[in-house]
Amino acid sequence: MGIKYIQKDDIETILTTALSFKGIINQPIKKVPSLREVTVANLFFENSTRTRLSFELAEKRLSADVVNFSASGSSVSKGETLTDTVNNILAMKVDMIVMRHPNPGAAVFLSRELKKYPKSAHARIINAGDGTHEHPTQALLDAFSIQQKFGTLQGLNVVIVGDITHSRVALSNIFLLKKMGANVKLCGPATLIPKHIQALGVDVEHDLKKALAWCDVANVLRIQLERQDIKYFPSLREYSLQYGVNKKVLESLPKPITILHPGPINRGVEITGDVADSEHSLILEQVENGVAVRMAVLYLLASVPGT
Amino acid sequence: MGIKYIQKDDIETILTTALSFKGIINQPIKKVPSLREVTVANLFFENSTRTRLSFELAEKRLSADVVNFSASGSSVSKGETLTDTVNNILAMKVDMIVMRHPNPGAAVFLSRELKKYPKSAHARIINAGDGTHEHPTQALLDAFSIQQKFGTLQGLNVVIVGDITHSRVALSNIFLLKKMGANVKLCGPATLIPKHIQALGVDVEHDLKKALAWCDVANVLRIQLERQDIKYFPSLREYSLQYGVNKKVLESLPKPITILHPGPINRGVEITGDVADSEHSLILEQVENGVAVRMAVLYLLASVPGT
Amino acid sequence: MGIKYIQKDDIETILTTALSFKGIINQPIKKVPSLREVTVANLFFENSTRTRLSFELAEKRLSADVVNFSASGSSVSKGETLTDTVNNILAMKVDMIVMRHPNPGAAVFLSRELKKYPKSAHARIINAGDGTHEHPTQALLDAFSIQQKFGTLQGLNVVIVGDITHSRVALSNIFLLKKMGANVKLCGPATLIPKHIQALGVDVEHDLKKALAWCDVANVLRIQLERQDIKYFPSLREYSLQYGVNKKVLESLPKPITILHPGPINRGVEITGDVADSEHSLILEQVENGVAVRMAVLYLLASVPGT
Repeated sequence: MGIKYIQKDDIETILTTALSFKGIINQPIKKVPSLREVTVANLFFENSTRTRLSFELAEKRLSADVVNFSASGSSVSKGETLTDTVNNILAMKVDMIVMRHPNPGAAVFLSRELKKYPKSAHARIINAGDGTHEHPTQALLDAFSIQQKFGTLQGLNVVIVGDITHSRVALSNIFLLKKMGANVKLCGPATLIPKHIQALGVDVEHDLKKALAWCDVANVLRIQLERQDIKYFPSLREYSLQYGVNKKVLESLPKPITILHPGPINRGVEITGDVADSEHSLILEQVENGVAVRMAVLYLLASVPGT
Repeated sequence: MGIKYIQKDDIETILTTALSFKGIINQPIKKVPSLREVTVANLFFENSTRTRLSFELAEKRLSADVVNFSASGSSVSKGETLTDTVNNILAMKVDMIVMRHPNPGAAVFLSRELKKYPKSAHARIINAGDGTHEHPTQALLDAFSIQQKFGTLQGLNVVIVGDITHSRVALSNIFLLKKMGANVKLCGPATLIPKHIQALGVDVEHDLKKALAWCDVANVLRIQLERQDIKYFPSLREYSLQYGVNKKVLESLPKPITILHPGPINRGVEITGDVADSEHSLILEQVENGVAVRMAVLYLLASVPGT
Repeated sequence: MGIKYIQKDDIETILTTALSFKGIINQPIKKVPSLREVTVANLFFENSTRTRLSFELAEKRLSADVVNFSASGSSVSKGETLTDTVNNILAMKVDMIVMRHPNPGAAVFLSRELKKYPKSAHARIINAGDGTHEHPTQALLDAFSIQQKFGTLQGLNVVIVGDITHSRVALSNIFLLKKMGANVKLCGPATLIPKHIQALGVDVEHDLKKALAWCDVANVLRIQLERQDIKYFPSLREYSLQYGVNKKVLESLPKPITILHPGPINRGVEITGDVADSEHSLILEQVENGVAVRMAVLYLLASVPGT
């Protein structure tokens, strides 16, 4: 349901499996018959074409049957509970559900509720992001991308820059990076970093230049324009001036650092176009790895015996 | 186009075929190649994720090629007639169309119009609900669910509880249950039961407890909150008090009765959560049977020679 | 990216290939395995269920894997650039993108931008309509439909009637018909015909009856009610009286002419129902041919070596 609950061993198994799937999607024939008899429903209660597309492609590469279910027009707006909606889909003999939900903790809540229904107790639900809570496959693909470049996560210095408070990516990344032995620092305006966060074993550094000078990898989060975060800082322009990652600040650093961004990027806001397109940016690599990592998660979950 | 026009023999064929498909979807390999060369378009002019998903899964279990067409953004909003839209889709060599439309009688109207076009005259259109008129596959899956439990519909006492006026489920159920030899009673506030309805050979009983005491099966309809039916009764709370099916009223009956509900359920309004989840509830069974019944309808329609 | 840039030879190859695919979709088994290992994303930034459905069916007849991406809820509304969105989809190892975009020139712009990214420089993007600019596959299917009827386009007289200014169909048709040796005239109110258009080698005739008397084929464009073109002419009724193609005007002509319309039609506005349904109308034929032509374009693009 979240990276918080996954063991280090399991993370390593996912990353290793993802590596072989990355090999497959880079061959002319990008498909394997692994999930030929499996039906997956993508249940998106919140718009996220990018994540939905990545999952859908992962499912199709594995030869699964795919159905999409989006919130607009769903029974949800007709007063049905989340548990009832999911129980209904499972009753239609869907084998796995990939769920994106706007409410923090929806995936954990659902998994607890489903245990009350014998037929659904062992349902395979993949959390594709639950509000500001977690986004496990994003953290896995970030870790996979870093590991591909550096060989390991152990001992690496990783800075997460930007809006930590509203980012499900941040929380999942912190859990995962710490489990894998990386050192994690957060950087952003005080208004966008939750006060309790140091309890997770991470440092906070409000000076962007200092944070970047320390790190091997910077994971730059997007400013969610659509959430009108403008109230958390004076203006987009001022945010960019202080926390925008641009060529000038990178060139002032003692050594080149690797840039990640979960996308979609706002060119000129939290990251400049030249940085996003530079040789040190893994942004499109992350997107490619996303499909491989999701194939791994789907494949491994389908193979769990007895569920 | 509606249960009204289907013969008893054909209903029995559908129910028998559904039974074998139910066997198939409960095996590890849930797919048959029956419609491998058939293309089905799901043409939804009204939101109904649940019904669309059930049909789409049925189609995919039969190995059909599936395309989805939803009203939002369709040519319909561009001034095209329903007949033209359907003729266009048929011209693209789509073999079958599953149609949900908000207007009562849309399916019958369409079938009459298409006869004017030689190429479309024998089109296979499945009515997935037309406004407040009919919802034939829902009635078939309700009948199938009852038959699975009782062995037969003949002589059974069935009460339909709730908003009869606005329910396409009610009308299709009345036609089908009568054809199959069941006794049907309607129960609900006078404002939600059409005055002419006794002409269909059903009784009306306004007292919920009396109606339930009489029946073997109660099919509890949902109060469509989104239609703001509030004007038909004082308040949701008052509706629940008088017509809500709860544990207390069920325990006061001489014998346990079987509960159906077409979903999505409003827990605490027309039915309480404990009743919906009880051993006498067939609600999730109905959902499962829905896929089997729709597979049967698609399969049988595809096999009709000469059309 | 547009008919403007396609050579006559390539057009002929597409039309010949479409002919064999038309044979295939008229057989009981309408599918070929040509694109079995190819993934196509339909990227629609503008609603067009009809065109999307035609492409999706073409893709499925060729056995491609298909994913749909529509603008509503896309990253686009989150501030991402078009180039970033497409680069992301390509990074997911999608082989071909079919794109509909509301902005004139979006396809050409995109193709120029993608050249800056080595991994995307050879991407296969199919223009499914870009604003008022071009709609190449519509022009190809129109040409194909005319060629099927007359054997050739060479020397034929074709009138395009209606709103030329706002029609991507008109521009693509002019380019294509001229390349294939047809004579093209435009007919409509002066307010709906761009002043510079004669530079493309076409004549303008404001009198509908004269224009129709001259032609072998009339391609009647739709009045786009949803764009409230009402400001370009006094009223729909007046438009119909002067430029509506009806039985009466057709019967007054020296010889019968063939009628095309790109759909969706507004019966009683730019064309009457009896004309649309008459034996001289190719309207539904065009829809059928659309699938064959799109199969040809997809198939040929997939076979281009080295990209």
